[in-house]
Amino acid sequence: MTEQKNNRLLILSHNAHKYAKLIADAGLPDLQITPAVTVEKARIVANQQNILLAPPDLAYEILPAMTNLQWLQSTWAGVNKLLGEGCRQDYLLTGVKGVFGPIMSEYVFCYILMHERKALQCYELQKARTWEMPRPGLLRGRTIGIMGVGSIGLAIAQTAKHFNMTTYGYSRSAISKPEIDRMFQPDKILDFVSDLDYLVSVLPQTLNTNHLINSTVLKAMKTDALLINVGRGNVLDEKALIRALNSQDIAGAVLDVFQQEPLPQSHPLWNTKGAIITSHKSALTYPEDITPIFINNYNRFIARQDLQFCIDFEKGY
Amino acid sequence: MTEQKNNRLLILSHNAHKYAKLIADAGLPDLQITPAVTVEKARIVANQQNILLAPPDLAYEILPAMTNLQWLQSTWAGVNKLLGEGCRQDYLLTGVKGVFGPIMSEYVFCYILMHERKALQCYELQKARTWEMPRPGLLRGRTIGIMGVGSIGLAIAQTAKHFNMTTYGYSRSAISKPEIDRMFQPDKILDFVSDLDYLVSVLPQTLNTNHLINSTVLKAMKTDALLINVGRGNVLDEKALIRALNSQDIAGAVLDVFQQEPLPQSHPLWNTKGAIITSHKSALTYPEDITPIFINNYNRFIARQDLQFCIDFEKGY
Repeated sequence: MTEQKNNRLLILSHNAHKYAKLIADAGLPDLQITPAVTVEKARIVANQQNILLAPPDLAYEILPAMTNLQWLQSTWAGVNKLLGEGCRQDYLLTGVKGVFGPIMSEYVFCYILMHERKALQCYELQKARTWEMPRPGLLRGRTIGIMGVGSIGLAIAQTAKHFNMTTYGYSRSAISKPEIDRMFQPDKILDFVSDLDYLVSVLPQTLNTNHLINSTVLKAMKTDALLINVGRGNVLDEKALIRALNSQDIAGAVLDVFQQEPLPQSHPLWNTKGAIITSHKSALTYPEDITPIFINNYNRFIARQDLQFCIDFEKGY
Repeated sequence: MTEQKNNRLLILSHNAHKYAKLIADAGLPDLQITPAVTVEKARIVANQQNILLAPPDLAYEILPAMTNLQWLQSTWAGVNKLLGEGCRQDYLLTGVKGVFGPIMSEYVFCYILMHERKALQCYELQKARTWEMPRPGLLRGRTIGIMGVGSIGLAIAQTAKHFNMTTYGYSRSAISKPEIDRMFQPDKILDFVSDLDYLVSVLPQTLNTNHLINSTVLKAMKTDALLINVGRGNVLDEKALIRALNSQDIAGAVLDVFQQEPLPQSHPLWNTKGAIITSHKSALTYPEDITPIFINNYNRFIARQDLQFCIDFEKGY
């Protein structure tokens, strides 16, 4: 005789079995767990489940079949896929916070250090068996500007401080943070960028962030500055960036996110001089990071308390 | 009427004028400063100088002409060039400590982060306009082993701790350091390396360090481990390394130092799979770092006190 559970969790993820094990190990009360690694497998059981744990792209596929859904815990920070016109909004949507900062910091400092040490030039020179390599620079004393000073931006600032850099922050509100040496508000964006060796955007996709980095901003930057976008593609005017790189208004751009993903094969960014392209992998999801957030929210869910990191469907975050 | 100074400093360096300005700005008493950017220019005045500030390679050239030399302040940490058989030892030789740690840490973590993020693979995939890129790893939770836990090794350990790594140290003496989770002595070298994701040597060249990293050590390492040598080339048996890389006993090696430098163009390391070659630039000398050491030692010199970082010609450090 199988005991009937009131809460039925569908885990839809290529890591579904890893998640299922971690969540089962927590021994949560009154919870039946069903892992599915494909949308097809999930579809068979979808209408019996009231909770979904999934990344937004897979959740988007299965949502119409989840006729009894009460709560969706996203495994990603960016949930725009679920906020478009015509998307249902008749359930609780919770996001993820506080886990991506150190991971994204590893990405950002990988490419900042490569830039200072001219690692790709050295790599090409090695292929040509050439001992004479360019003199490397140092992070120490450089200035980094971070757009978006939530938990991710502050984690990047902490690493910058470890390497003895000067940190600038850009934020809509006049807040002050110990990791940030100088804070700038939107009306001072040109002052903000004009001193920077590195401009890093971790901004999410909202109506307020569209093309915030445009040709005016790029022209105000130093010619030896490097732009890094690990937030969302909408923040950057890609055509303006290509012009800026071609006219050497800035030294380079490291892009993990794009207006259209996957970046189309014919897109000029692939071989624009100074552009480094990675495929939206700056902060992957690790089940070890997401499971504690789910567990905490599940305990709140059964106690009928407010969930953590609830997304406002109107605001988009 | 020019006042006669008792101490006459020859600065022999491609940065001689930068050094001369920084030292002149300090207003040191009783000191005449002569900068020379080439050995030829230095030779003209060499016999009138009692103090030399120079890198060991240039110092080696000018030493025979410096008939009144009392003290040589090296601008590098490695002074082996001045310790060979037949080298004069009738002067005070002082080295450099405490400045290269953060600089070398930038090099080490550039290449560790590139390895985790598979940055060179992604770079080649970008050239082929390929969106599908390999899944990156994380530093968090990896284990790094550091051979040589002086100021440079500890700076590397501090950065490792910032990235939430586990740190092992290898040292001849049984010391304990807050940045090092576990310390190993020479009789435990195989235990030391067998757990490591990253093995970093910052060891200097001494009789005790010759081929410390040999085929036995390489075979004891994990097959996905990365070796990084930023110390001295004598520490590594290069032939054993080439065999280890070709048989995939380890995943790769990042080498900034070699048994013979420049690395000969015909050397097999240039295109051994998994080998990354840089040209002894992991810790360049910056006059801003060296000048305070010179100033402090000059004040001790005129006060007839012991100088800092004196090299013992017998021990070699």
